Amino acid sequence: MTIRVGVYGATGYTGLELIAILARHPEVELRFATSENSAGTSLRQSHPAAPDIPLVTSDEAPLGEVDAVFLCLPHTASAKKAAEALAQGVRVIDLSADLRLKTAADYEHWYKTPHAAPEILPVPYGLPELGREALRGAKAIANPGCYPTATLLGLVPLARKGLILPGTPIIVDAKSGVSGAGRTAKQYLLFAEITGNFYPYSIGRVHRHLSEMEQTLAEEGIEKGRLIFSPHLLPVDRGILNTMYVQVSDIPAAQQAIRDAYAGEPLVAALPGGEMATLAHVVRTPRAAISTTPGAGSTLIIVSVIDNLLKGASSQAVQNFNLMWNLPETSGLL
Amino acid sequence: MTIRVGVYGATGYTGLELIAILARHPEVELRFATSENSAGTSLRQSHPAAPDIPLVTSDEAPLGEVDAVFLCLPHTASAKKAAEALAQGVRVIDLSADLRLKTAADYEHWYKTPHAAPEILPVPYGLPELGREALRGAKAIANPGCYPTATLLGLVPLARKGLILPGTPIIVDAKSGVSGAGRTAKQYLLFAEITGNFYPYSIGRVHRHLSEMEQTLAEEGIEKGRLIFSPHLLPVDRGILNTMYVQVSDIPAAQQAIRDAYAGEPLVAALPGGEMATLAHVVRTPRAAISTTPGAGSTLIIVSVIDNLLKGASSQAVQNFNLMWNLPETSGLL
Amino acid sequence: MTIRVGVYGATGYTGLELIAILARHPEVELRFATSENSAGTSLRQSHPAAPDIPLVTSDEAPLGEVDAVFLCLPHTASAKKAAEALAQGVRVIDLSADLRLKTAADYEHWYKTPHAAPEILPVPYGLPELGREALRGAKAIANPGCYPTATLLGLVPLARKGLILPGTPIIVDAKSGVSGAGRTAKQYLLFAEITGNFYPYSIGRVHRHLSEMEQTLAEEGIEKGRLIFSPHLLPVDRGILNTMYVQVSDIPAAQQAIRDAYAGEPLVAALPGGEMATLAHVVRTPRAAISTTPGAGSTLIIVSVIDNLLKGASSQAVQNFNLMWNLPETSGLL
Amino acid sequence: MTIRVGVYGATGYTGLELIAILARHPEVELRFATSENSAGTSLRQSHPAAPDIPLVTSDEAPLGEVDAVFLCLPHTASAKKAAEALAQGVRVIDLSADLRLKTAADYEHWYKTPHAAPEILPVPYGLPELGREALRGAKAIANPGCYPTATLLGLVPLARKGLILPGTPIIVDAKSGVSGAGRTAKQYLLFAEITGNFYPYSIGRVHRHLSEMEQTLAEEGIEKGRLIFSPHLLPVDRGILNTMYVQVSDIPAAQQAIRDAYAGEPLVAALPGGEMATLAHVVRTPRAAISTTPGAGSTLIIVSVIDNLLKGASSQAVQNFNLMWNLPETSGLL
Repeated sequence: MTIRVGVYGATGYTGLELIAILARHPEVELRFATSENSAGTSLRQSHPAAPDIPLVTSDEAPLGEVDAVFLCLPHTASAKKAAEALAQGVRVIDLSADLRLKTAADYEHWYKTPHAAPEILPVPYGLPELGREALRGAKAIANPGCYPTATLLGLVPLARKGLILPGTPIIVDAKSGVSGAGRTAKQYLLFAEITGNFYPYSIGRVHRHLSEMEQTLAEEGIEKGRLIFSPHLLPVDRGILNTMYVQVSDIPAAQQAIRDAYAGEPLVAALPGGEMATLAHVVRTPRAAISTTPGAGSTLIIVSVIDNLLKGASSQAVQNFNLMWNLPETSGLL
Repeated sequence: MTIRVGVYGATGYTGLELIAILARHPEVELRFATSENSAGTSLRQSHPAAPDIPLVTSDEAPLGEVDAVFLCLPHTASAKKAAEALAQGVRVIDLSADLRLKTAADYEHWYKTPHAAPEILPVPYGLPELGREALRGAKAIANPGCYPTATLLGLVPLARKGLILPGTPIIVDAKSGVSGAGRTAKQYLLFAEITGNFYPYSIGRVHRHLSEMEQTLAEEGIEKGRLIFSPHLLPVDRGILNTMYVQVSDIPAAQQAIRDAYAGEPLVAALPGGEMATLAHVVRTPRAAISTTPGAGSTLIIVSVIDNLLKGASSQAVQNFNLMWNLPETSGLL
Repeated sequence: MTIRVGVYGATGYTGLELIAILARHPEVELRFATSENSAGTSLRQSHPAAPDIPLVTSDEAPLGEVDAVFLCLPHTASAKKAAEALAQGVRVIDLSADLRLKTAADYEHWYKTPHAAPEILPVPYGLPELGREALRGAKAIANPGCYPTATLLGLVPLARKGLILPGTPIIVDAKSGVSGAGRTAKQYLLFAEITGNFYPYSIGRVHRHLSEMEQTLAEEGIEKGRLIFSPHLLPVDRGILNTMYVQVSDIPAAQQAIRDAYAGEPLVAALPGGEMATLAHVVRTPRAAISTTPGAGSTLIIVSVIDNLLKGASSQAVQNFNLMWNLPETSGLL
Repeated sequence: MTIRVGVYGATGYTGLELIAILARHPEVELRFATSENSAGTSLRQSHPAAPDIPLVTSDEAPLGEVDAVFLCLPHTASAKKAAEALAQGVRVIDLSADLRLKTAADYEHWYKTPHAAPEILPVPYGLPELGREALRGAKAIANPGCYPTATLLGLVPLARKGLILPGTPIIVDAKSGVSGAGRTAKQYLLFAEITGNFYPYSIGRVHRHLSEMEQTLAEEGIEKGRLIFSPHLLPVDRGILNTMYVQVSDIPAAQQAIRDAYAGEPLVAALPGGEMATLAHVVRTPRAAISTTPGAGSTLIIVSVIDNLLKGASSQAVQNFNLMWNLPETSGLL
């Protein structure tokens, strides 16, 4: 079985990783890759170790010749292309934020712009380890954000067991490598600005990824407004590490809930007691790892790690693609 | 006025910074600098940009010819040398942990070894901005740890105003550059292990610096056992950034308490609203900076930053030295 | 066809990479991996993203149960183990320096110690792109050093065509990531010493890798004593970039000689005119890349790049292994 | 004596360093600092550790109220402002390339644009250790480029003694931190592009700094066209290290020539035999350091290091300023 796919937005960090995975996926034939700025060149010119793949503009891409598309486009552009693809019977894995929220109203609230294709909402949220049934055979899947992936893998198992103390703050102190901010040139992302530096940004209740996290937690009974999310920019190219502080009713039960949730999962590891999750566990892999440590009183400390470009974006997109087409979930990944 | 000083333990990162400050201090004459491993060489051989200062062993150092000593020695060695100096009328600024705890029992509890000179305890704790009166003219001063400096500058103003909600957890998510781990060769500190990596260690209730932090907070009415302290190792050479989550009774009052505490302080800045503290504010300076951001509900987020080798060690030691000798507090520092 | 292999010295950077390659090699069964310091633990404890492979001591390793061994041992230890394996009919790929020089006298001259197994010399030198015939079916192969690999790939094609001007200096300005210095804890390799720093070491005519380079060049008619080799330590974890300055009789012919030498090679690319070789071309890949630029007069500038742990060590070892067993040369590598 | 100065172009890396030096210079009063993009804000908003200095546009700056100006402007803009200042009797230290070449024709050849103020050429070239007489009391000084500073400090002493073999290539393999490329946002300077990477650019005979180097060497009898200059981009924020390969008639005499040239110089050190120059010798200092090592045959290897933002730009500008006003040359610097 060969599935013909196209990638929109191939020259960003996420697109590069996605192309690399698809190039070694046994059931995939990559038919096109787009870039508005680099059309007419090879992907190798955008990254010297990438495969030698010609780039075309979005308009030139033969959408009618593929079975599925991966969208690594800016938001609003992504929703439009998703609607166009679905209308032609082409399946969609969207790596932008456009399809993650269930309603256009929520989207407009957080993204300060009307949704470009409200008619295709809602779409299944593609975090396989937290619920893969809705993803099997889906026509469209919203690929989660990088921070939400790391956060929800740690919190949802506790919420499902009712272990989080009602009304308490849920604190997510998150640290991300700079590739999470994209590949567009900005002064604050220059090497000379980032090396030796470290700082928080958009902390408290303002980062857009709060919307996804709280939407998913609300489905598990955690009311909105309790999450405190503090992202920080790490002087590394890739990786996210979340240190989360949760008030729980029973610390050993909470630790067990996490172990139980991921027993048998090939891509998410609940680490054994005493082993702390580090970026080195996951960077350049499609895996997540989680460790738990008792704090004081009712506080449990949960550390979760992913590669923001892989489990936080491209490898998870391929997990979702595999589920969509009823392929083995780790095809192309291990 | 010229004060003759000696430095014990000059070749570690802290010692190097201290020597550099003392070399430009207008009232100081450096009489000796010690190193057990590098005695007989120049300090320049330990660091090519350091002043050309001969190193002697601790035993060779003419303790009788100085007015004060700075101790950058391993713990237990430091207490012994402090006692010896004080017995000869030489004043002491101790940068080790040996004199920070008020009782030998506390020391033994946290450091798992008997105190080497219990008779010289207690000694004033040298965090000038939180209480400089006890430091003026002192015979000995315990220089605070790097993490405690960053933590206490953020928390003590709230505790003094009674703004921290009783019984709530106080969460300190701390990130430190690797120079905090010292200059002794260890595999986990190799460049190839640290670059691109990031991780927590000794989190929860186990790091020794908890003892100092809780001792000082207890003096301000915060009972022991509530602090959750999660240090992380950053891939930078220097700098500490603490992100702290505190439950307070009145968020604006808490923000004002911090501004009030540091109004007029030359070395600690409460940043204006909207400006977030970053390592770039303080690295290679003797300064601290603090920003505050409301979280959700009663949670206030406090970010504090210092250079672990300066305000977290050597420049604070010189502040303490200046207070000890009734010199202007920032002599040699600005 | 399954070839049973063992790896001696699995926990260093080279060993880790080798194990990772062997774990996905379709014709290999890894029977054991040794570590004197970590025997009794899993390889995952030495590196959290490594496969979960038990480590045994060298003495415990069942040498009799394997068809081939890879030796990532310190020099002299390696030669002894190589002799032992060969005596039992087990083939050897040696990643140490022990088997690279053709005579025990040369070895003793450069390594200042007698050779531990002179009776097994000489052994074919495993740089496949410069001569793979001697490697097919070999009982033992000496895997080249990292610097020699990068250097010889650039220089040998010119030497073979007689393009290097007689008597002129051949200048190799080499820059290597720190993993080339190994994983043993040393102060000068600490993150805080390396970050932001850069410097040459062992420059001129003293580095041991000169012996390998000049031995191979001598076979191509370049007399010994003309090579000037200046290695530098880069603040990156992996990768070597050589900038080489060679006086040639005909610059376009020299550029063509390099293109011709690697036409059709799957793992060495002579880059098209105008494209400069960078570490990003090769890091974390088994590839080498070479670019050439005219200097002034008769000077040709050749830039060659490899990943020191892969083409400079472990992936080249697997190329050699594949040739030894008449497998496709890139098995396990692409 | 107080000299009133203005700085044009204060928010780039060079401008920031210059302001920091001037702020502690005992004879300087900084009257204005300009920035077209950040006018109306404080310099602290461009860099959190900078002094709190208001920024104005170039047009708003009160040129008539100062005795001297430092120009950190893009080329062509700089020449125009220099001419305007000189016409008003204000002295000029120009950190751009505009005044470095002696003739407008040379400028146009290398910079591909007509010179904006040919009437003010030639201007003394401000490399004090190679000739400070022309700088004392000068009305205008051209501050050398960063690469030329590092290169000429190593080569000129040999040229003056006639030690360089006629007709031989002079090879400068240069490595620079990324701040040398400026603070304007460009994709190739992003942290995620630079970290872990390293590569040469503009090698051979194309980099514009060749013009300055060869102009100065020509004055010492080295004809143009022999210099081969290969800059590389290092993953560090600051520092330049040049490894230079020169054919000399007498290696010990050449080493002695360098020692003699800098004996007694406060800011340039010829290192003792066996000590290799490293970035750590000079980064964040106004110093240069030079080491020499015999290669093979007639090749001498010279390693020179500077901080590209200090001795390669701003601290050298202040040396030149001090000479211009007959102040002690290291005022404000040590």
